[in-house]
Amino acid sequence: MKRYEQVAQAISERIEQSYYQAGERLPSIRDVSKTFEVSISTAQEAYRLLEDQGLAEPRPKSGYYVLNRQKAPQQLPDVSRPVQRPLEVSQWEEVLNLLCANTSQDIVQLGRAIPDLEAPTLKPLSRIMSDLNRYAQSSILSYEHLRGSDKLRLQIARLMVDSGCRLHPDDIITTTGCQEALSVSLRAISQPGDIIAVDSPSFYGSMQAIKAHGLKALEIPTHPETGISLEALQLALEQWPIKAIQITPTCNNPLGYTMPVEHKQRLLEITAPYDLPIIEDDIYGDLAYHAPRPPSIKSFDNEGRVLLCSSFSKTLAPGLRVGWVAPGRYVNQVIHMKYVVTASTATLPQVAIAEFIAQGGYERHIRKMRTQYQQSRDAMIGWIEKYFPQGTRISYPQGGFLLWVELPVEIDTVMLNERTMALGVCIAPGVLFSASGKYRHCMRLNFTDRPSERNERAVQIVGEEIRKMTQELTKVTV
Amino acid sequence: MKRYEQVAQAISERIEQSYYQAGERLPSIRDVSKTFEVSISTAQEAYRLLEDQGLAEPRPKSGYYVLNRQKAPQQLPDVSRPVQRPLEVSQWEEVLNLLCANTSQDIVQLGRAIPDLEAPTLKPLSRIMSDLNRYAQSSILSYEHLRGSDKLRLQIARLMVDSGCRLHPDDIITTTGCQEALSVSLRAISQPGDIIAVDSPSFYGSMQAIKAHGLKALEIPTHPETGISLEALQLALEQWPIKAIQITPTCNNPLGYTMPVEHKQRLLEITAPYDLPIIEDDIYGDLAYHAPRPPSIKSFDNEGRVLLCSSFSKTLAPGLRVGWVAPGRYVNQVIHMKYVVTASTATLPQVAIAEFIAQGGYERHIRKMRTQYQQSRDAMIGWIEKYFPQGTRISYPQGGFLLWVELPVEIDTVMLNERTMALGVCIAPGVLFSASGKYRHCMRLNFTDRPSERNERAVQIVGEEIRKMTQELTKVTV
Ligand SMILES: Cc1ncc(COP(=O)(O)O)c(C=O)c1O
Ligand SMILES: Cc1ncc(COP(=O)(O)O)c(C=O)c1O
Repeated sequence: MKRYEQVAQAISERIEQSYYQAGERLPSIRDVSKTFEVSISTAQEAYRLLEDQGLAEPRPKSGYYVLNRQKAPQQLPDVSRPVQRPLEVSQWEEVLNLLCANTSQDIVQLGRAIPDLEAPTLKPLSRIMSDLNRYAQSSILSYEHLRGSDKLRLQIARLMVDSGCRLHPDDIITTTGCQEALSVSLRAISQPGDIIAVDSPSFYGSMQAIKAHGLKALEIPTHPETGISLEALQLALEQWPIKAIQITPTCNNPLGYTMPVEHKQRLLEITAPYDLPIIEDDIYGDLAYHAPRPPSIKSFDNEGRVLLCSSFSKTLAPGLRVGWVAPGRYVNQVIHMKYVVTASTATLPQVAIAEFIAQGGYERHIRKMRTQYQQSRDAMIGWIEKYFPQGTRISYPQGGFLLWVELPVEIDTVMLNERTMALGVCIAPGVLFSASGKYRHCMRLNFTDRPSERNERAVQIVGEEIRKMTQELTKVTV
Repeated sequence: MKRYEQVAQAISERIEQSYYQAGERLPSIRDVSKTFEVSISTAQEAYRLLEDQGLAEPRPKSGYYVLNRQKAPQQLPDVSRPVQRPLEVSQWEEVLNLLCANTSQDIVQLGRAIPDLEAPTLKPLSRIMSDLNRYAQSSILSYEHLRGSDKLRLQIARLMVDSGCRLHPDDIITTTGCQEALSVSLRAISQPGDIIAVDSPSFYGSMQAIKAHGLKALEIPTHPETGISLEALQLALEQWPIKAIQITPTCNNPLGYTMPVEHKQRLLEITAPYDLPIIEDDIYGDLAYHAPRPPSIKSFDNEGRVLLCSSFSKTLAPGLRVGWVAPGRYVNQVIHMKYVVTASTATLPQVAIAEFIAQGGYERHIRKMRTQYQQSRDAMIGWIEKYFPQGTRISYPQGGFLLWVELPVEIDTVMLNERTMALGVCIAPGVLFSASGKYRHCMRLNFTDRPSERNERAVQIVGEEIRKMTQELTKVTV
């Protein structure tokens, strides 16, 4: 990184962290030059970069100002109001339906969370895998170390610096996707019957892990822009013997929000008296639209309480099944669980990804994807506003490729999905994201693909079916 | 398969199943010709093949006789006598030590169960993987179906016909190695606190899964040639509320025996009144030295009670992490567990293995490995007899590449391993294979490599250290 880029990054971090507020005047070029001990022209270049990044704007004769943060142009979903007591997770049938849905090319897949796999920036990874098979046969056919490939863990430790974490490679264990990371983390810190607090709506994979391990989920009200309600969580902590917290605070699935930095810090504070483990799912973190990516909760954790779970499934490709967990003080329990569950993670993809990152391929790919997904988000929101009925609410993702849509309450999205599937469009019904079958009038859509007529048409089909359902319902009522 | 091969196979199956006993006269050429409706010369060819396979011998003027089964030339270990009550599994530290042992090329690895990865018959598999990465990028980067690759499940169903199982591909779920198959099977059929009956000594991976899932192991006395004692099991069933049985009945790890067919059938009978699930680990089954391979317990199961677990880790390569489970009537629970644990199995190795099997590569490789491992077994047993002290007992594997050595009781193999590691040889101490730290004077050795001076020297080193330990102990006592 060049010097002016470092300076720009330091300033942008302060903006991200609201140290400099929207509309506020930023330090003068001269001040920046002094503070960072750089030349005037380097300070100027730094500000020009911030301007390009949409973070600062110059005002004639008065210097640079923090640009007003982009606001959601659309109406956002309500703060969620899940059932406020621990529940056994249901909805497995519905999840299974989605997982086993027809994946043929004829169907527009707005339901599953699969990244763009046609990106040219992924090609070098395939080439590396191809070569490894030719030239390193017996080493890639052998078991990897229990903790995972040394080379890969080194690269992951390097990547995690971007999220504010300074870890040793031995603090990291690779896994068969983020799902294994979540599953072994849950098992490592709880016993059947325990209560796990979760954001809500919440990723169905971790909810089903809670179910399978005999745990109960306590869904906490969640804000569509700032995430889990800390007030509600605090009350819940006083009321219930909560054993751990499991959330996706950065580029959330399904809502797309990123918890503000102060909230992340505060979450650590309010859980400190209970010495509570926090399972932080960071799988979409590197796909935040604005660089530098937001810090993880783990980056503020001095007590080893955070088990950070992630994978390359969304940033690179899910079929590789390579993820990781940085389990903090629970490392021994996690290693035991990891061993009994899969013994070790497949060798080839680990070695290949390590090489891909080392060659700079990961960074290049991510940079490209961030821009692409942000553009697709805007197109997708435009289509939804155009084709869906009045009163539709849409979340405003800050990263990743998923958004959440709240329809008029009378629309059942499980039924809607059956109707749109028959027309060649798959969506993810909202009930999947609740322990108790809430969010029946909501759905998650992905905007992985580059905007295309085919996808616009798919959104239009969903909109039309919603309208038809509304009309049918009105008739029945009349 | 040619007609005479089919006839030979039918007769050899009856020999395997002791329908024709050792030393008994086999049907005449004329009878065979009539029974199988083949020509006299085809019947003659069939017998010649059986002669080549070492199953039948001609006696002048009197026809063919069942050859006396090859007997172990050495003294076998005793029937095991584990603690006869349910126990929490210990020994994790010891297992971890082995898993994390130095794997450098400088150390002769007699401790781990890794197949020969340099075999030329594996090369086509690497070539297939290399090509897939070049020509099928986006499909192999995507999530596989939850149940696994359709193509691979079809091929697995075909392979399993050899073990007597007629399954539909949908009866099979692919997993991240056999370890995941065992782990999800255990979880699917038990609750924490339940008792699982196991053969003893037993593979440490499944024992640690029992531990991690909060279950108790009840170790059943086991015979070094015929496997788990059915009498002891029956008594245990009367005495304890056993929830399931977990065994490796074919080419057992660590002992190498294969349970006789009648025992496999009888096991199903005595567990029927309890409607007990049986987790059958068949990972070495295809590596039985005599073709056709022995039938699995699952092949006799009409009630869907057997969960068959296996993988390509021993037959092909462990780094691929591709296994499977055929869970019988427990399929729904197993699918849920599989989903929450790893979501799906890596795509590339599944597709590649399917192609490798379809091209005939699997069969060619297995045929070669069976012969190679049998030769290595004989070399290994020769070395042990040459270099180990009098009174050493050695198991007589019928397949795979592992054997079990019982030393004089005063030898502690954990200490022995520390000493031999310092001299560049790694062994697997016996305590790993017991819930309660039994078998301290035993060890498991692998004979994966082709016989070599280096490996003979390694066995010699172990033998010398045993002698030294014996001398040191005698001194102390005097
Ligand atoms: C938030 C979240 N966590 C975890 C996962 C599972 O990831 P992986 O495919 O790496 O197991 C997903 C995949 O959809 C996800 O969206
Ligand atoms: C009997 C037995 N079962 C299961 C396993 C685990 O196999 P995998 O590497 O396919 O998970 C092993 C590996 O050592 C084994 O010996």
